[in-house]
Amino acid sequence: MGIIDEAKRGQITDEMRAISKLEGIPVEKVRNRISEGKIMLIRNAKYPSRKLVPIGKGLTTKVNVNIGTSSEVVDLDMELQKVKVANKWGDTLMDLSTGGDLDAIRRDIIKASDLPVGTVPVYQIFIESFKKKSGGAYFTEDELLNTVEKHLKDGVAFMTIHAGITKDLAIRALKSDRIIPIVSRGGDMIAGWMIHNNSENPYRKNWDYVLEMFKEYDAVISLGDALRPGATGDAHDEFQIGELLETARLVKSALQKGVQVMVEGPGHVPLNEIAWDVKLMKKLTGGVPYYVLGPLPIDVGAPYDHIASAIGAAISSASGVDLLCYLTPAEHLGLPTVKQVEEGAIAYRIAAHAGDVVKLGRKARKWDDEVSYYRGKLDWENMISKLIDPQRAYQVYTQFGTPKVKACTMCGGYCPMMWAMDQVRKIGSSSSL
Amino acid sequence: MGIIDEAKRGQITDEMRAISKLEGIPVEKVRNRISEGKIMLIRNAKYPSRKLVPIGKGLTTKVNVNIGTSSEVVDLDMELQKVKVANKWGDTLMDLSTGGDLDAIRRDIIKASDLPVGTVPVYQIFIESFKKKSGGAYFTEDELLNTVEKHLKDGVAFMTIHAGITKDLAIRALKSDRIIPIVSRGGDMIAGWMIHNNSENPYRKNWDYVLEMFKEYDAVISLGDALRPGATGDAHDEFQIGELLETARLVKSALQKGVQVMVEGPGHVPLNEIAWDVKLMKKLTGGVPYYVLGPLPIDVGAPYDHIASAIGAAISSASGVDLLCYLTPAEHLGLPTVKQVEEGAIAYRIAAHAGDVVKLGRKARKWDDEVSYYRGKLDWENMISKLIDPQRAYQVYTQFGTPKVKACTMCGGYCPMMWAMDQVRKIGSSSSL
Repeated sequence: MGIIDEAKRGQITDEMRAISKLEGIPVEKVRNRISEGKIMLIRNAKYPSRKLVPIGKGLTTKVNVNIGTSSEVVDLDMELQKVKVANKWGDTLMDLSTGGDLDAIRRDIIKASDLPVGTVPVYQIFIESFKKKSGGAYFTEDELLNTVEKHLKDGVAFMTIHAGITKDLAIRALKSDRIIPIVSRGGDMIAGWMIHNNSENPYRKNWDYVLEMFKEYDAVISLGDALRPGATGDAHDEFQIGELLETARLVKSALQKGVQVMVEGPGHVPLNEIAWDVKLMKKLTGGVPYYVLGPLPIDVGAPYDHIASAIGAAISSASGVDLLCYLTPAEHLGLPTVKQVEEGAIAYRIAAHAGDVVKLGRKARKWDDEVSYYRGKLDWENMISKLIDPQRAYQVYTQFGTPKVKACTMCGGYCPMMWAMDQVRKIGSSSSL
Repeated sequence: MGIIDEAKRGQITDEMRAISKLEGIPVEKVRNRISEGKIMLIRNAKYPSRKLVPIGKGLTTKVNVNIGTSSEVVDLDMELQKVKVANKWGDTLMDLSTGGDLDAIRRDIIKASDLPVGTVPVYQIFIESFKKKSGGAYFTEDELLNTVEKHLKDGVAFMTIHAGITKDLAIRALKSDRIIPIVSRGGDMIAGWMIHNNSENPYRKNWDYVLEMFKEYDAVISLGDALRPGATGDAHDEFQIGELLETARLVKSALQKGVQVMVEGPGHVPLNEIAWDVKLMKKLTGGVPYYVLGPLPIDVGAPYDHIASAIGAAISSASGVDLLCYLTPAEHLGLPTVKQVEEGAIAYRIAAHAGDVVKLGRKARKWDDEVSYYRGKLDWENMISKLIDPQRAYQVYTQFGTPKVKACTMCGGYCPMMWAMDQVRKIGSSSSL
């Protein structure tokens, strides 16, 4: 029995209590929202992660960190360093490896990760088929499903399952005048498979079996958006929304069977379409958690797409997105370095908090109020210690030497706050004002 | 006669034609909007900058780069390097120097700058008073006005004039329970002066004379927001809005006299209050250009406030802000290095474009469509050459060596776009689909 079934029966479990405590909301609310599919626990029940990561309505926005080898760069040590960065800054981690011994890499990453780990299982079977049969589309439905099961057995907590895209949608998108027809790597593998084998989506054909497998581990199906826009000019066209409609139907059948499920979202979306994208998704799906890639409000920002997409991520979080998938400065260009993984994760931590200040109000803003309180008092030590990255902040604070006055090198002796404090004292002692 | 007077008389000047050409909008529209105060030309008519910088309704969002010495770090060479960075990435530049020979520094910066240069004249007179008379508030009204005139004579194109704050507002703000009463450096100097001298705001007392001076050079008054919120918890309180009301009145009297004017805005503002902040300002002022500092939607982001505030900047730009004042990674901590100035400017270039894609629609998105077109074709050379920073993008593209396949190191041989292109070809040649 999964956590959704427990909640539907009215049970309050230790996990629900832990979520309640972690997020500071009443446990009954946690239970009710789990029963409605509005809160999910990102986990593989047989292999719980060290960090408890619930996502959904009323909870803080979480950040996912993608890592993994490519066919050109296979450096497990580097990837394990990225796991450490993810452990520090992230909430979930996806292993998107496509190069080297994929089983071994995945297992090492899961072992090193404090966070629940996600994968995109079609990558592996596609690559194996490519290598063994010299064509990525030569895998069978059983081989795909066995790969999913293998990942579950390894302890994977969530997987991108591209079940929303139908053969008809794929063909129409590929024939369309989209600027870029398909940018989703896994989505394209499924589309290619359907066309090559003249068959419907293998996940759709075996949907009940997929649900059973995830149910057994109480892991989370992350419904992939194969037709997400990869250019702002392609946002919210019939293909993106057509797939979302299919996805919403799958969400309902998953919830009915008590299977944890969330929905993946774009991608490249102009800034003014982000808020209603979230509202539309929540409306159509009944409010299950939404997991988006930014969105990225421009197409020209590389190698700064961690910044460009943090803009979209903050807006999407404020509008109700529950899990943000980060981008790094290497997005659209190549595999990120460890440092770039950290830059991306930090940008998204910032975006998530900017969203939470809206979504959760004062509960989230307490942190800001505290920093600002110390800032107003010119209490540098406490102010810096409470910032998002105290260590790096202190380096910048002292980059021209330790400031001589009780201010900073920006204003030096002319610090407006020192002045303000003087003025407040003067006013306090003067009855004429 | 200034450009507003010319426009009011129905004249079409060479400058209006140049603005029309630069921004791709009909010259009559340019003229009409100038006559209504909705477009300003950031300039000092007697010392035109090499770059033409109009701001306002229907125009691209512009980016201001702040530089300048502090009392602790006086390094003119470094500041002149920052000017070069500003010339590359920015549209306007403010010299906020408070250390060293302020007249000499300002003149050197103006000489090196391709961009119109702005200042905050009260800094200089406050500091001179501080040094000569051992108290920042000992300057006279005449000395303040003479400083303004000196800056105009030096070729300064716009100045922050803190005329909106009244003595009453200043006292009430300083006595309030704001988390940080006043964070504006110049605003605090004016507030301190008013309290120390028990006098109304010196700019307000001499408002007509201030207008005359700016009129003579057709330079731009940038009405400073001394009471801008310096903590998200202080946003949109009676002090911020009270000052905005005063500012809006001053805007109207400036426009009546044909003096170019814009309004400065916050500061620290939660994400969901940014869009309506812009709408409120535009409504109250009749739609003159708005020049904001981000806004910054969180207080805890240092040393990444260039990223945190780029979030707010993109939203404010999309909502109608005309000129964005950048923040650097050193904001709230100290003086920025040259590299940090560049990081801030690039983050704001990204934010400005994200806003323009909304404000200007396809006209701005043409750039994105072009990049995405090449991206979809896997034409790396052209794609990278059109990005916001091709040089740095190429470095990231090749950071693990030049990719061997026609893809990138992220996906290697499993590039979804190569696949998509194959699929499109297959579909094209198959009549059965």
